[in-house]
Amino acid sequence: MAQKPGIPKGTRDFSPEEMAKRQYIITTIKYHFETFGFHPIETPSFENYNTLMGKYGEEGDRLIFKILNSGDYLAKADEFFLQQKDSNKLTPQISEKALRYDLTVPFARYVVQHQNDIEFPFRRYQIQPVWRADRPQKGRFREFYQCDADIVGSKSLWQEVELVQLYDGVFSSLGINGVNIKINNRKVLSGIAEVIGEKDKLIDFTVALDKLDKIGEDGVKKEMQEKGISEAALVKLQPLFNFTGTIDEKLEKLTELLAASEEGMKGVEELRFICDNVKTLGLDKSVLDLDVTLARGLNYYTGAIFEVTAPEEVKMGSIGGGGRYDDLTGIFGLRDMSGVGISFGLDRIYLVLEELSLFPETVTEGTKVLFINFGDKEALYSMRAVKKFRELGIKAELYPDAAKMKKQFQHADRRNIPYTVVTGEQEMAEGKYTLKNMASGEQESVSLEELIERLK
Amino acid sequence: MAQKPGIPKGTRDFSPEEMAKRQYIITTIKYHFETFGFHPIETPSFENYNTLMGKYGEEGDRLIFKILNSGDYLAKADEFFLQQKDSNKLTPQISEKALRYDLTVPFARYVVQHQNDIEFPFRRYQIQPVWRADRPQKGRFREFYQCDADIVGSKSLWQEVELVQLYDGVFSSLGINGVNIKINNRKVLSGIAEVIGEKDKLIDFTVALDKLDKIGEDGVKKEMQEKGISEAALVKLQPLFNFTGTIDEKLEKLTELLAASEEGMKGVEELRFICDNVKTLGLDKSVLDLDVTLARGLNYYTGAIFEVTAPEEVKMGSIGGGGRYDDLTGIFGLRDMSGVGISFGLDRIYLVLEELSLFPETVTEGTKVLFINFGDKEALYSMRAVKKFRELGIKAELYPDAAKMKKQFQHADRRNIPYTVVTGEQEMAEGKYTLKNMASGEQESVSLEELIERLK
Repeated sequence: MAQKPGIPKGTRDFSPEEMAKRQYIITTIKYHFETFGFHPIETPSFENYNTLMGKYGEEGDRLIFKILNSGDYLAKADEFFLQQKDSNKLTPQISEKALRYDLTVPFARYVVQHQNDIEFPFRRYQIQPVWRADRPQKGRFREFYQCDADIVGSKSLWQEVELVQLYDGVFSSLGINGVNIKINNRKVLSGIAEVIGEKDKLIDFTVALDKLDKIGEDGVKKEMQEKGISEAALVKLQPLFNFTGTIDEKLEKLTELLAASEEGMKGVEELRFICDNVKTLGLDKSVLDLDVTLARGLNYYTGAIFEVTAPEEVKMGSIGGGGRYDDLTGIFGLRDMSGVGISFGLDRIYLVLEELSLFPETVTEGTKVLFINFGDKEALYSMRAVKKFRELGIKAELYPDAAKMKKQFQHADRRNIPYTVVTGEQEMAEGKYTLKNMASGEQESVSLEELIERLK
Repeated sequence: MAQKPGIPKGTRDFSPEEMAKRQYIITTIKYHFETFGFHPIETPSFENYNTLMGKYGEEGDRLIFKILNSGDYLAKADEFFLQQKDSNKLTPQISEKALRYDLTVPFARYVVQHQNDIEFPFRRYQIQPVWRADRPQKGRFREFYQCDADIVGSKSLWQEVELVQLYDGVFSSLGINGVNIKINNRKVLSGIAEVIGEKDKLIDFTVALDKLDKIGEDGVKKEMQEKGISEAALVKLQPLFNFTGTIDEKLEKLTELLAASEEGMKGVEELRFICDNVKTLGLDKSVLDLDVTLARGLNYYTGAIFEVTAPEEVKMGSIGGGGRYDDLTGIFGLRDMSGVGISFGLDRIYLVLEELSLFPETVTEGTKVLFINFGDKEALYSMRAVKKFRELGIKAELYPDAAKMKKQFQHADRRNIPYTVVTGEQEMAEGKYTLKNMASGEQESVSLEELIERLK
């Protein structure tokens, strides 16, 4: 009995049309990565179990796909764990590899492993799929591509300036107007927690603050209260709600608020350097904004924090993010290697371009001309032309079978092939080709040179 | 304690230089795939367990990487299998997904699943990694890319003609002279088995014959005898050893040998059609040859069989292969869907290009110009030029830190960046840039326009 074909939930097949559109985005991103001096690397799809586990928190550990050892994997498994059906304890005994969960930890591992061959500062980009055993839902998949660019080996804030420009370059090239590049700084968040007297509640405080646009001021305050943040602290926090104005105005307000915190003032200074230089150098179609509620993976970032959102008319959430992390490679034994990086959310960018109808029509252009097949003699005559076209880089095909003409023209139609060529006995006798424009229906009899001229 | 970084055996990291070279090969292959009218698809890295299992024989089943179910995967496992430590029986209970083993079975699954959306004949290409739990050795990896082009939905032999041209197109573009494209036909092999009276020993017969260039005539005969092939049969086989001459001569000999086999004569006819048309249309740098010992995955192919080997001076074995399979999609319930396809062996092609020094120098070209950093004021001045360069698609960087000049020039040197630009106070005052050619050491003071002109 035949199997009903299907794919695992949360995964996708990509059709030629979807591939063409995805490739268009990836090519644009790669182009900008490379003009900014980033070089590609690739790492294996699976890493050693211990390389990944413990790097993403408990929830992350659960979401990592583990690969079953090959062969008689139970032979050395602990009988007690088997008896107890203790999945958690058994896993490390029957799995020594796992699919990568992101590109950052593999990159950290790569930097440490190859540190002697790398010339620092090292600018790398990496565009590869990652896998997460998340509950699949709209826009969330178990296999998806990440597109990351990182620089390791320098603390210079010019890199943050460049990463903002890089975001602007990519999104402007893709034709998206008004992408919002939001920036914040971990030191500012720490500073705020310090000046409101809740330094030890930094995480709770920022997790709540990060939800401002979802649950509103009252919601945030309620959550903070629940986490034990004092009334006095909330009063001091008041300026952060309705934190509006230009970047300069916001920086002024922060300077006042954080005057008592050395770390906070350092954060403000970093933000000012980045924002001033971005402004001086100018952005194309994007807007930079300072968002003090932005936290993202706070434990991870130590300086700048970035998040990019689609233009307001598209409800999409984040289409990119990143930041500065001062100890990326410490977990693998290489200290004091500062890194800063950004990521592009391919799937969401795809949806934004689709919604705004920004994919150029040329992106999905396929074969340009189909030669109609009347039989082997005519086919050979056609194949000489087809060969010529292909040598010139013009996408050309011969319909493989001498099927009914109607069927062959229909095939061209359905595939949106704009031209067909008919080569019957008469054409062969005259050394000609009958070229048909499929949209207009116009036909003309031309020589091979003319045919090439028309389709070039 | 820090973990010592490493990767699973049989997997690889790819450095920027390796990536550039691999990308060069892939880009060349894609270019030709597309001029031939092939369209890209992608399928998920893991498929349902049942989609893959049982498709590659027992050995294949063992080599497929299985993914452990998430969560408490032992909860529903059979206690008896656990007690018995029966790995084989337990596997389907704790794993419902597996990493793809090749691109062919996922493609067959794709065609059947999306048959209503596909316009046939369907030309697809697919370039993605596959995974096999093989014992790693020189040139054999547990994760490697396959580059496949297949056409499904037509039995036309013009497609075999085109696939030979496609091989020639790719390898000629890569600059390899004298690639050997070997062709055979399953029907010819069946015919031979028939006329020597050993039709039921087709597999044993071809497996032995396939080894001719490894174990020689005597070795092949010995193996055939061991498999019970009669002396009389071996006598009839004699013409196949030292089967030399032009393709036409070989086809003549086969016509004599196979006169009594209808299937064999059909195979000869197919070979003649393909070889004649390839010859008439001409090949660029490759050579087509008829190799009657070529069998490859015999159970799979039903018509043409292809294998491509590197030029003789490179000892590399097969760098590509493929053939016609008349029932690709039957396993998933779609009958009578003939397919024909070829595959390119990326890793081996890489080694061939390396050995023959055929990678163009431009392939690994990275950043073109590095701006030396003297401090924030100068850096801002430089960044204006860097931004301009990037907008023009010229790869440019600012050294992120105001480090010692020697260190910065060394950085440019080590990365083979051909130009550096110095912008000190004097340059800023004059609105100039000092451009240094790192190879010659020459320096000149130029305006921004001149700088662009020099580096374009």
